[in-house]
Amino acid sequence: MPKACEIDGEAGPAMVTLTTDFGLEDWYVAAMKAAVLRCCGRARLVDVTHGVRRGDIVGGSICVERAVDAFGAGTVHLAVVDPGVGTGRRLLIAKIKEQLVVCPDNGLITWAWRRQGGGVTYELTWRPERVSETFHGRDIMGPAAGMLAGGSATAEELGRLVDDPVLLDMAPVKPPGRAGRIIHLDRFGNAMTNILEETVRAVPEARVRVGGRDIGRLRRTYAEVGHGEPAALIGSSGLLEIAVRDGSAEEKLGLCMGDEVIIG
Amino acid sequence: MPKACEIDGEAGPAMVTLTTDFGLEDWYVAAMKAAVLRCCGRARLVDVTHGVRRGDIVGGSICVERAVDAFGAGTVHLAVVDPGVGTGRRLLIAKIKEQLVVCPDNGLITWAWRRQGGGVTYELTWRPERVSETFHGRDIMGPAAGMLAGGSATAEELGRLVDDPVLLDMAPVKPPGRAGRIIHLDRFGNAMTNILEETVRAVPEARVRVGGRDIGRLRRTYAEVGHGEPAALIGSSGLLEIAVRDGSAEEKLGLCMGDEVIIG
Amino acid sequence: MPKACEIDGEAGPAMVTLTTDFGLEDWYVAAMKAAVLRCCGRARLVDVTHGVRRGDIVGGSICVERAVDAFGAGTVHLAVVDPGVGTGRRLLIAKIKEQLVVCPDNGLITWAWRRQGGGVTYELTWRPERVSETFHGRDIMGPAAGMLAGGSATAEELGRLVDDPVLLDMAPVKPPGRAGRIIHLDRFGNAMTNILEETVRAVPEARVRVGGRDIGRLRRTYAEVGHGEPAALIGSSGLLEIAVRDGSAEEKLGLCMGDEVIIG
Repeated sequence: MPKACEIDGEAGPAMVTLTTDFGLEDWYVAAMKAAVLRCCGRARLVDVTHGVRRGDIVGGSICVERAVDAFGAGTVHLAVVDPGVGTGRRLLIAKIKEQLVVCPDNGLITWAWRRQGGGVTYELTWRPERVSETFHGRDIMGPAAGMLAGGSATAEELGRLVDDPVLLDMAPVKPPGRAGRIIHLDRFGNAMTNILEETVRAVPEARVRVGGRDIGRLRRTYAEVGHGEPAALIGSSGLLEIAVRDGSAEEKLGLCMGDEVIIG
Repeated sequence: MPKACEIDGEAGPAMVTLTTDFGLEDWYVAAMKAAVLRCCGRARLVDVTHGVRRGDIVGGSICVERAVDAFGAGTVHLAVVDPGVGTGRRLLIAKIKEQLVVCPDNGLITWAWRRQGGGVTYELTWRPERVSETFHGRDIMGPAAGMLAGGSATAEELGRLVDDPVLLDMAPVKPPGRAGRIIHLDRFGNAMTNILEETVRAVPEARVRVGGRDIGRLRRTYAEVGHGEPAALIGSSGLLEIAVRDGSAEEKLGLCMGDEVIIG
Repeated sequence: MPKACEIDGEAGPAMVTLTTDFGLEDWYVAAMKAAVLRCCGRARLVDVTHGVRRGDIVGGSICVERAVDAFGAGTVHLAVVDPGVGTGRRLLIAKIKEQLVVCPDNGLITWAWRRQGGGVTYELTWRPERVSETFHGRDIMGPAAGMLAGGSATAEELGRLVDDPVLLDMAPVKPPGRAGRIIHLDRFGNAMTNILEETVRAVPEARVRVGGRDIGRLRRTYAEVGHGEPAALIGSSGLLEIAVRDGSAEEKLGLCMGDEVIIG
C-alpha cells in the first residue's frame, strides 16, 4: 500500500499555473491561455486564482508562493498582477526550487522568494514582433511561459541575469520573533499571519493576541474549541492562523489585513 | 452520421471531477489539484463547482450526484465540503455506477447514493506521513483520488469496507408520492424539486402547487407559457422544476429552499 | 532565440473553448463538459467565461469573437447563451477562420462574423436519441462540439448549409466612420468601443469624446496620463478604449453600455 502520495513523482510535464487579477467575467484569462498553448500545445494549465483584487501585488504574491509550494520541479508559474503595464517596469523570470515564475518585476515574486528560499532572477527581455501596450500577459509573459514549459527556450535565452528583483517589505517572522501581522483573509474568514510555525513553537506555552484580544494558547485543531469560539492554530500553509470554529474570524473578531498579531 | 454522442465511449482515462466550497478567490483549489496531479501526473481535472455555500452539505451532495450522472465509468469524483475537518469524522470512498466518490463521511454522498442506486462504501483509512489538521482535501482526499484515478491503488487498498455511510434525510420522491420540496435554486432562479419525473407522470392531468400557489399543469417547454409566466416542467436533471419564462422563479414567486411542492 | 510565439504552431488538437451564461455556482458547465468529453475523450477544454450576464447575447458575442481571435485553426468554440431554448430557434455551426463555432442561431455569432470576416454557416440538425427541453448545451451542442473536435463528424454531416444566420445590429466602425459606442465594460472598468484602430488612425490628431466629455487625443499607453486621469487608447482587442489610469473609467466617468463615442 502506498505510503506517500508522490507516486508518479512530479505533477507531469509542461505544467503551467496561472495567477492573475483578471477576474472570470471577461475573456482575458482565455486569451492568455491561448498564448501559452500556441507556444506549447501540450501545456497543462491549472488556475491558481484570477480573483486577486485589482492590482493587489501582496495578495497575488501569497498565491504565487502557495503555487510554488504545491507543485513540483519543472512547473512554470505565470503570474500577472500588473498595474504598471505601459510604464517602464521590467518583466521577470525567477527560478525558485527548480520551478520558474514569470511575472512583472513589481514585487509579485516577494513572498515566494522570501518563504521558498530565494533563487536566481532574469529580466525577461524577449519580445514578440507585435505587442499591445496594455496586455503583456497575453503578448509577452504568456508566450514566454509557454516556451519555458515546452522547452523551446530557456530562461537564459529569454532574458538576462539580474540580481535586484523588486521585493516588497514583507517577510515571514522567524524565531525568535514575537510579532507579526495578518497577511491574508480567506473565503472562510480565516486570518493567515506571516508568523512561521517554528516561531510559535519556539515560545513555550505560547498565547496569541490580536488587536488586544487574547485568542488563547495554540490549538491543534478547530475541534479543541467550542462552536463559534476563536482558535489560534497552524494553518495548512504552515503559518499561524486565527480562526473561529464554524464561523468567520474576520467577521466575529473584526479582523483586518495588516492587524498586528503577538505571541508570548 | 452519428446517432448518439457516446462515440468515443467514456470521457477518457484518469478523469477526476472536483466539487468543493473553497471558492475561487484563494489558492485552495489549486493546492488540492496539485495533490491529485502529484499522484497521477496524467489526471484530467474537471471542476464541477467550487461555489458550494460554506459547509452546505446538501447543496454539495446534489452537485456530486449531477457529476456522477454526467460522467462515465472509471471517473473519480473528489468532493470536499468538510466543516468537520479536525474532528473524528471518517473519510469515505463510495463506488456508485462504476465510478468512485472520495469525500468526507458527513452525508455528502447522500444524493448520489439515493438517486444513482447506492453502491459499496469504504472508510478511507490511508494517511500520508504528514497531514495538516485543517486541509484533508489536499493532504488525504486529493492524493487518494489521484491514486485511484491513476490506478496505483484501489479502494480496497486505501480503506476498509463499511456499510454505514452517513446519509442525510433527503430522498427522491417516487410514485405514488404527491409531495416534495425545493432542493436547489440555480443561477437562473429555477427551483429544482426532489420529485422524480416518473412521479409526476404517474398523476394524470397533474397540477403543481408550491406555497399555496397553483403553477398549473406540467409543461413540456418554457415556450408553452407567456413571457414572465411561471411553468412547471421536467428539468434537465429529470426532476420537477418550477421556472419563470425569461425570468427568475425564485424572485417572481418568492421561492425558498425547502418550500413544499404538491402535485395532484 | 525564438522570434515569435507560434513555435509549436497551433494550440494543439481537439481544442474546445466554452462561453456561457451558466455561472460557476451550479453543475451546468461540468455537465456540458462531460458531454463534450464523452464524444471526444481527448478534448482539451478552455473556459472563455461562464459569467456572461443571463441571456446577454451581445456580451456573449464579443467573448466568442475574442476566442476566435486568440485560438488557431481547428479550434471548436462552444458558446451557449440560449434564452430561446425550448422555442423553435435553430442551432448553428459557423466556420470562421478555419475554426468552428457551435451556438444557438440567435445572434451569438454576430461579432465574430462581423470582425473576423464572415464564413460559412450550417444549421445544426443532428439530434441525439434523448434530448431535454431545457439544456441543449448538454444534449445537442456539447456532443456536436465534441464530435467536431474529435473528427468523428464534420459540420456537413451534422447539419445543412444555410446562408441566413441571425445577425444582430452591431458592427465594427470602419473608416471613414466617426461615431461608435461602448460595447463592453470590463472588470477593470475599461470601456471598449466598436471603433477599429484603423478608423481612429485615419483621423489626423483625433480627439475622443464620450457623452459630451473630451477625453483628449489618442494615447499610446496609460503611462502618458497622470494617476486617475482618463485616457483614450487602442486596447488589446484592437479597438478604441476609454480607460482611467489606476482607476475605473466606468465609475469615474459614469460610462454605460451603449454610450456614444465620437472621434474627430
